[in-house]
Order: sequence, then structure tokens, then C-alpha cells
Amino acid sequence: MGLFITIEGPEGSGKTTVAKRLVDTLNKQGIKTIYSREPGGVIIAEKIRNIILDVENTNLDPRSEALLYAASRRQHLVEKVIPALNDGYVVICDRFVDSSLAYQGYARGIGIDEIYDINLFAINNLWPDMTILLDIDPKIGLERISANRQDEVNRLDLEGIAFHQKVHEGYEIIKEKYKDRFTLVDGNNTKEKVFADVYSLVMEKIHGN
Amino acid sequence: MGLFITIEGPEGSGKTTVAKRLVDTLNKQGIKTIYSREPGGVIIAEKIRNIILDVENTNLDPRSEALLYAASRRQHLVEKVIPALNDGYVVICDRFVDSSLAYQGYARGIGIDEIYDINLFAINNLWPDMTILLDIDPKIGLERISANRQDEVNRLDLEGIAFHQKVHEGYEIIKEKYKDRFTLVDGNNTKEKVFADVYSLVMEKIHGN
Repeated sequence: MGLFITIEGPEGSGKTTVAKRLVDTLNKQGIKTIYSREPGGVIIAEKIRNIILDVENTNLDPRSEALLYAASRRQHLVEKVIPALNDGYVVICDRFVDSSLAYQGYARGIGIDEIYDINLFAINNLWPDMTILLDIDPKIGLERISANRQDEVNRLDLEGIAFHQKVHEGYEIIKEKYKDRFTLVDGNNTKEKVFADVYSLVMEKIHGN
Repeated sequence: MGLFITIEGPEGSGKTTVAKRLVDTLNKQGIKTIYSREPGGVIIAEKIRNIILDVENTNLDPRSEALLYAASRRQHLVEKVIPALNDGYVVICDRFVDSSLAYQGYARGIGIDEIYDINLFAINNLWPDMTILLDIDPKIGLERISANRQDEVNRLDLEGIAFHQKVHEGYEIIKEKYKDRFTLVDGNNTKEKVFADVYSLVMEKIHGN
């Protein structure tokens, strides 16, 4: 049985960079590791995600959106994460349940507890072995987002800075609410320092198992 | 504010025939009524339903399927049912939450309570004003299904008779479990008698409002 690690944090926290570098580093050391990010190449999950991100679906209801994220998460978990864990892989997942708590639960205003419940249904108790939360000062995170706007625009990008501000607030709330589940890493530091901290925590976890 | 009525029952219970005739009859009497059946022409809900019914998606996980049904239900409710109710229509909905309880909750084995919870999230407390359950002897229902197999095959039709047997059992269980929510009509009778019973209950409800 492998090890299931999720990396969480608002946009601008450097999550994806850290996760990918971590996967490369572990693989170079002979530790079988995969990077994944929902929907992760799982065809059904991709189809679901297409509905969420399609710019034509501007009237997608927030509760429908949350249920679609949960459905996509479930399919990705069943088709990709669980088989990899069964094959002994370390699975580094870039975003998981906590992203929905911050985005749909808080920023969309549905309620963190309600989003937690439908995600509990989706994961059916398969919690990660470790969830690393890149903790970042909202001001720094938002500056990084502004500097990194992509050319390709999807429905979420249209939300603008006010929405991302809410997402940051959401992470601040869940950081407290679920503090026993999170391993915090200070994301305000340099990329090198953030990576070194994450790497050290993951190696500790791997050797502890 | 209109009136929201759902018609439930296993396949072979005559649900759709009754619902459509009811809508025609009420409209002829000048009572503004619409028939709907999820996804009901709501584009986003149709897209979601296409994922569920696509015969290529044989590896669709049962929990993903349940979340997709809930997402489609939510969108149909928000885009079609609620606006019609606000316009004063009687909305006759052919299947609703209880179908998911019987199909995904019981027949798929996920658990009725768990499916109830995600559907509660989806409907956000907008329960129907009345739910008519066409109560039918499983033996009679299954005979009617066998006699009426359609030429067009979707993923659910592939399930075969054993699955429909389970659906019937599911309806038997929810009939007891949620008896306060249901208005029962004996579906074993002739079409004429079943319609007359349903019509009479609905007229009573309309005049009681």
C-alpha cells in the first residue's frame, strides 16, 4: 500500500510547482511517485470537468457545481488514485477535498459543513495520509495571482480578484477548523525554502510508514 | 406560488402515462400545468445526464453516478421547476429524489440514508408539496417491464431484470421509511382507475391550497 498526500493552498501559494518538483525528486530517489491533479486524465472525470469549466455554462448553479466537483473527485479517486496506491505508489495530489471547502463551501457561500458532507460521500472515508497546506499571507498570494494571469481563460478565471480574496479567507477558516488534519508549511518563503520544508515533511512521513 | 407534485414508482408502475394525462387534463381545465422529467430540456442537466447514460462509461462509479444525478436534479430544479412555480404553475415531475433513493441508495447498494443526504443538499429543502407513489406488486411491475422493452438501449437498460427487481425492493423499503411524505396510490389497478385516483388526490390538493 502506497502513500496518499494532498497539497492544498489558494492560488498563488506555489502548490503546483512544489508538487511537481516533489514528484521528480522522489522518483529520482527510486521512490515510485505520481503527480495527479483532478480530473487527471480520467475520461469520465474530464467529461464532468468540461461541464464545470465551459464558459457557456454561466448559469451553472453553485450547488450543482459542488456536486459535479465531488463526482469528478470520486471518479479520479477510484480510477487513478486507489489503483496507484494499491501498486505501492506515493500519490501526490494537487488539490483535493479542502479546495472544495474553500472554493464552494466558503467563497461560493454554500457552507463549509455542507460541502464537507458531500465530499465525505465522494471519498467514502479515503482520507489522505497527509495533507500539506501551503499557508500564505493573502496579500502575497493575490499579488502572485495578478502577476501570473494565464492567456487561456476558463470560467473560474472570469471570477476576478474578489473571488480569489474570498478563497483566501476560506483557507484561513478551514486552516483553523480542521487543524488536526493539516500539516502547515509557510508559503510566504522563497520557493527553495518552501520546497525544502515540504520535502522534509514528506520524507519523514515516508520513513515513518 | 404554484404547486410542486412528484410522481414516483418503479418501472412498470405506469407513472409516465399517468403524469402526462394529468397534465393534459389540468391544462384543459384552465389550470396552468407543466410536465417535467429530469433533465427536462435544461441544457446543463442534459449534459450531465449524457455522462450517466453514455454506454461507453461502463466504469462510472456508483457514487459518482449518484452525485451526477443530484447535480442534474439541482440544475433542473433551479432552471425549470422553481421559475414555473414562481409563475404559478402546477409542476408535475416524473421522478425526483425518491427515485435516487430506490435506484442508487438501495439497488446500487450505496445506502438510502447516504443518498438522502446528498439529495437534501441538492434540493436545499425544496421538497414537493405532494409525492404520489404508485404502489405496485413487484411481480406485476416486472411483467410489464418485460412486455415493454424499448428498442433504444441505454446504460440502465443493460442492467437487466435482476436490477429492476432490486429497484422494486427499494421502493418497498422507502414506502415504509418515509410514509409520512408519500401519498400512496394502488398501481395494480387498471390504467383508468389509477388515473382517477391520482386525479382526485391532486384536485383535492389544488383546492386545499
